[in-house]
Amino acid sequence: MEILIAEPKGFCFGVKRSIDMVEKALKEGKKNIQIFGPIVHNPQQIKLLEEKGVKMVNSIDEIQPGTVFVRAHGVSPEVFRKLKEKGVVDIIDATCPFVKVEQEYAKKLAEEGYQVIIIGEKNHPEALGAQGYAPGSIIIGSVEEARALKEVPKIGAVVQTTLEPEAVDDIVAELYHKAKEVRVFNTICQSTKMRQPAAKKVAEQVDLMIVVGGKNSGNTRRLAEVCSRIKPTYHIETAAELKKEWFEGMKKVGISAGASTPEFIIDEVIEAIKKMDGSSKKTSKKKSEK
Amino acid sequence: MEILIAEPKGFCFGVKRSIDMVEKALKEGKKNIQIFGPIVHNPQQIKLLEEKGVKMVNSIDEIQPGTVFVRAHGVSPEVFRKLKEKGVVDIIDATCPFVKVEQEYAKKLAEEGYQVIIIGEKNHPEALGAQGYAPGSIIIGSVEEARALKEVPKIGAVVQTTLEPEAVDDIVAELYHKAKEVRVFNTICQSTKMRQPAAKKVAEQVDLMIVVGGKNSGNTRRLAEVCSRIKPTYHIETAAELKKEWFEGMKKVGISAGASTPEFIIDEVIEAIKKMDGSSKKTSKKKSEK
Repeated sequence: MEILIAEPKGFCFGVKRSIDMVEKALKEGKKNIQIFGPIVHNPQQIKLLEEKGVKMVNSIDEIQPGTVFVRAHGVSPEVFRKLKEKGVVDIIDATCPFVKVEQEYAKKLAEEGYQVIIIGEKNHPEALGAQGYAPGSIIIGSVEEARALKEVPKIGAVVQTTLEPEAVDDIVAELYHKAKEVRVFNTICQSTKMRQPAAKKVAEQVDLMIVVGGKNSGNTRRLAEVCSRIKPTYHIETAAELKKEWFEGMKKVGISAGASTPEFIIDEVIEAIKKMDGSSKKTSKKKSEK
Repeated sequence: MEILIAEPKGFCFGVKRSIDMVEKALKEGKKNIQIFGPIVHNPQQIKLLEEKGVKMVNSIDEIQPGTVFVRAHGVSPEVFRKLKEKGVVDIIDATCPFVKVEQEYAKKLAEEGYQVIIIGEKNHPEALGAQGYAPGSIIIGSVEEARALKEVPKIGAVVQTTLEPEAVDDIVAELYHKAKEVRVFNTICQSTKMRQPAAKKVAEQVDLMIVVGGKNSGNTRRLAEVCSRIKPTYHIETAAELKKEWFEGMKKVGISAGASTPEFIIDEVIEAIKKMDGSSKKTSKKKSEK
């Protein structure tokens, strides 16, 4: 059985950077390290950090004196203010630089009098964070929602960095019917942009796709969706979920992993798949990114 | 036979305004009135003006001392400059105010460093005129052309005032893949925006559609296209083209007319259709605009 791996796979730039920042804080011996919200939508990575003594806190009230991390998704200025008001904490901002750009554009557009639209998932922390930078802004996740918007003179839009570019097309086309001026900052990050075409390409060449990543990770779920339109696809979080019968008669298996999937999980999955089949010959990487 | 008329029909604001300006100049006794390019894409209206002594000139070299009109479509600043250099002429600018807005946005976007895209017909005088206001701008008339664009940091787009909004959707969606920032000024005029839905609505209620207007008028051709997707449709320039056999067995006939179709032509067509059928009962107007 041949295994093809779609690249890029696993942690995107922003997630890797945020986890590296936490690891650094651990090494420096910082006390009582807390992360505001899950640092990455992956339960296994969270567990690994928790084992090292890092705490995930879900509300500002829970925060104790010590170090608190703002995760890669970012938070609204309101949340930042509240964190500062706690006074007793050292705040480390691990917001992804690409998310920062999204937030800044949202802010700038609101200041310039645009009705700001965050094209993103309604309850996604990144979209909610960006929304906080643009008073009166609206999160739009579907063409139907865009169609329901009332007409305004000027629409300014930013895009959640992890959305599939094709999913945004129809929303952008719809926005253009809603205002005389429509200004879109396409803030989808390069890594997301490349990950899906890479996964699709691998899916076309294999008999079965295994997509690895948190069930609560939006971008991983979309990878699985995209692949399932091409080939039979299983979305798993860990190697333990793999079933021998999936691989019966399969000659080529493809692997793709979301932006929040840690490398060690992907490695475990690859090793487990190899064991599913005695005749495993080779593992080839489809490099789409260097 | 019942006749339904789609409103708005005939001259749009800009065309009516330009012809009124010429009529006023005639009344004032201005000498040697010339129009640079056909003032309206309608041979019958042109003939009517020519009979009154107005000359259509197609090149700057042809212009003689007297009065010269810039038509509703507008011209590039380069053409304006050349007209002024002729020195011997009185220039009257009958550019449609909505086209002026399009030109001004094109200019502003170019000044602000955007790659300017004129979404419009490649050889349409309005698109060519607007192009002249934005150095380096490109006219894009199809999704394929948009797809072929190279990626740039910032795209700024304006839209030919007479394009069908739906035809522009896919181009806008494609542009958004070509730049980090896409800014679209939706300069389609209100009259165009309403004319097509009104024609569609009438087409849905009748057995046959008659679309009246110049064969060289882009917006009239698009009205005919839109109607022909719904019901059998004939695009005619004058009542003389009507054929009795088209109306055999027809109970309801719809009429729509382009933005360059003079009222007298539409009236003649309505009268001629009434004569096609002895049992003509009434003419109802589907008002979509007041």
